[in-house]
Amino acid sequence: MDNSYATTDQPASSTDTQLVTLDDIRAAANRIQDLVLRTPIVALPHPDRPTDVLHLKAESLQPTGAFKLRGAYNTISQVLDESRDLGIIAQSSGNHARAVAWLAKRLDLHAVIVMPDAAPPTKVAAVRALGAEVVLVPASQRDSHTFELAAEHGYVEVPPYDDLRIIAGQGTVGLELIEQLPDVDVVLVPISGGGLISGISTAIKALRPEVQVIGVEPELAADAAESLREQRRITWDTALTYRTVADGLRTPAVGIHPWEHIRRYVDDVVTVSEEQILAAVRHIAVEGRLVAEPSGAVATAAWMHDLAPRGAKVAAIVSGGSVAPALLAKLLTS
Amino acid sequence: MDNSYATTDQPASSTDTQLVTLDDIRAAANRIQDLVLRTPIVALPHPDRPTDVLHLKAESLQPTGAFKLRGAYNTISQVLDESRDLGIIAQSSGNHARAVAWLAKRLDLHAVIVMPDAAPPTKVAAVRALGAEVVLVPASQRDSHTFELAAEHGYVEVPPYDDLRIIAGQGTVGLELIEQLPDVDVVLVPISGGGLISGISTAIKALRPEVQVIGVEPELAADAAESLREQRRITWDTALTYRTVADGLRTPAVGIHPWEHIRRYVDDVVTVSEEQILAAVRHIAVEGRLVAEPSGAVATAAWMHDLAPRGAKVAAIVSGGSVAPALLAKLLTS
Repeated sequence: MDNSYATTDQPASSTDTQLVTLDDIRAAANRIQDLVLRTPIVALPHPDRPTDVLHLKAESLQPTGAFKLRGAYNTISQVLDESRDLGIIAQSSGNHARAVAWLAKRLDLHAVIVMPDAAPPTKVAAVRALGAEVVLVPASQRDSHTFELAAEHGYVEVPPYDDLRIIAGQGTVGLELIEQLPDVDVVLVPISGGGLISGISTAIKALRPEVQVIGVEPELAADAAESLREQRRITWDTALTYRTVADGLRTPAVGIHPWEHIRRYVDDVVTVSEEQILAAVRHIAVEGRLVAEPSGAVATAAWMHDLAPRGAKVAAIVSGGSVAPALLAKLLTS
Repeated sequence: MDNSYATTDQPASSTDTQLVTLDDIRAAANRIQDLVLRTPIVALPHPDRPTDVLHLKAESLQPTGAFKLRGAYNTISQVLDESRDLGIIAQSSGNHARAVAWLAKRLDLHAVIVMPDAAPPTKVAAVRALGAEVVLVPASQRDSHTFELAAEHGYVEVPPYDDLRIIAGQGTVGLELIEQLPDVDVVLVPISGGGLISGISTAIKALRPEVQVIGVEPELAADAAESLREQRRITWDTALTYRTVADGLRTPAVGIHPWEHIRRYVDDVVTVSEEQILAAVRHIAVEGRLVAEPSGAVATAAWMHDLAPRGAKVAAIVSGGSVAPALLAKLLTS
């Protein structure tokens, strides 16, 4: 299946390629430690083989319900003076938005959040409740509208993933994981814009190059899997990616910076079905006692369906927990 | 209201009174660290005042879904040779049972678990799945039946709460809490047999005597609240305590050893209604992204309903997460 409609944006020359380093990630860890939770590793037994256990890194327990707080805070803390003077702006399908709004409230900054009009009402409401100004636009205009507002008002932009500061911040997940599980063999990571897996794979390959880092996407938004297979950054049509229930993973392509990290450091990208994603949300709640959103459950879904080698010590990132209560209720009774 | 039918068992003389010390709890922390999770502190916003945050100590994330693993492991690790030779026995409404069965599997011991026939099927099934032998008896015969089986077969008993090793193990929750939240003002703790609050209050009053430790019970199983008010250990009828949805808190009286700790170290015991408990389970899932069982949610319920002083920095122990999926589903759609 070829869902691509364009190949895009290789850096103009090799000198354009910038990569985050382990030192960048360590510096980020220092910058963010006062507001970011060192999330626990929670044991999840396999549904069919109870002695086989997955190690969940529960980023869903961050104060804003997702890992996004790490990159956002690492970025904002480096532009704090301008942000105070001018305000900040961010665009996101939800979790990055909530992280930026939460930080703005904590740090006393004016925040404008551009969200797709199809974002789940739970996520929009959560951002508004934090006091941020929300601007709803069609998904395809998120980038352009954010750019225009920033240009017009001078807001400092906090990008969702295509930024080295963001990648370094998300990389702190990998740093913690290696400290918490030094003998891990395989790490499964959800991919949307690619910031999370870029940071994690950078940290892990620097510290433990033999550990496998595997990305996971919904079959219905598998642009990164296709990109890695084709060895070029491929963009899917937004209408295609919006078919998946995993609303945090509908980004049509990984970012330019993330792609440079993914093609170097990520061993494989696998895909899971909608049914597998929903079964994972249920299993994480019942046996892991964690509320995960569908996007946060794809890595667990991959493990449940044997997409990581059996017998290996496997960790999965539960990237976020903002699921609609009605959906979780439906899964719990299924 | 006086639901008591007996006052019981003050120690025969003051020399009978044994109390756990901070050193006992520190020793327990060393013994149990290889298998017990240092649980995170998770931020939970108040339903009506979003900037007001409760700090949840998420014991529900232990590998067996509850704090019980701490005391059970601290006990078993001190009688490991006999346990290997003779097997172990425990009685419990669920979470202690599961902890003992899990440890038995990990440590390769034969385990017999005596459970009340009214225990939730989820909890019974979880114990059986771990390979333990389950004996179901009427709730009122739990103690006597366990004693008889232990006498007959020579099993080593792992008591649920009325034991200094158990109390010291549960106290490690308090040790961690003070390290994680050094400026906490109030700690809310569920009370059933009283092992958890005994250990926590011992640790906290030793380290930070000015911190308030407040016990929480369901109104329908408020024997400890009545005991503290009356300054004597009061036992409720089992038929009364079995009315509450909080199935882990139906113990008719705190234990003899726990009572000696509670009367010295616990500042107050408050009660919550069934409705408040269920609302807390829902709120913890939606805003805290943690699955809590009703028993695990009573401390949060107390905070939600202003039973801790406003403006104070408050922590609540989420003691367990083994809720029936159908009940959680119902609450999520309510």
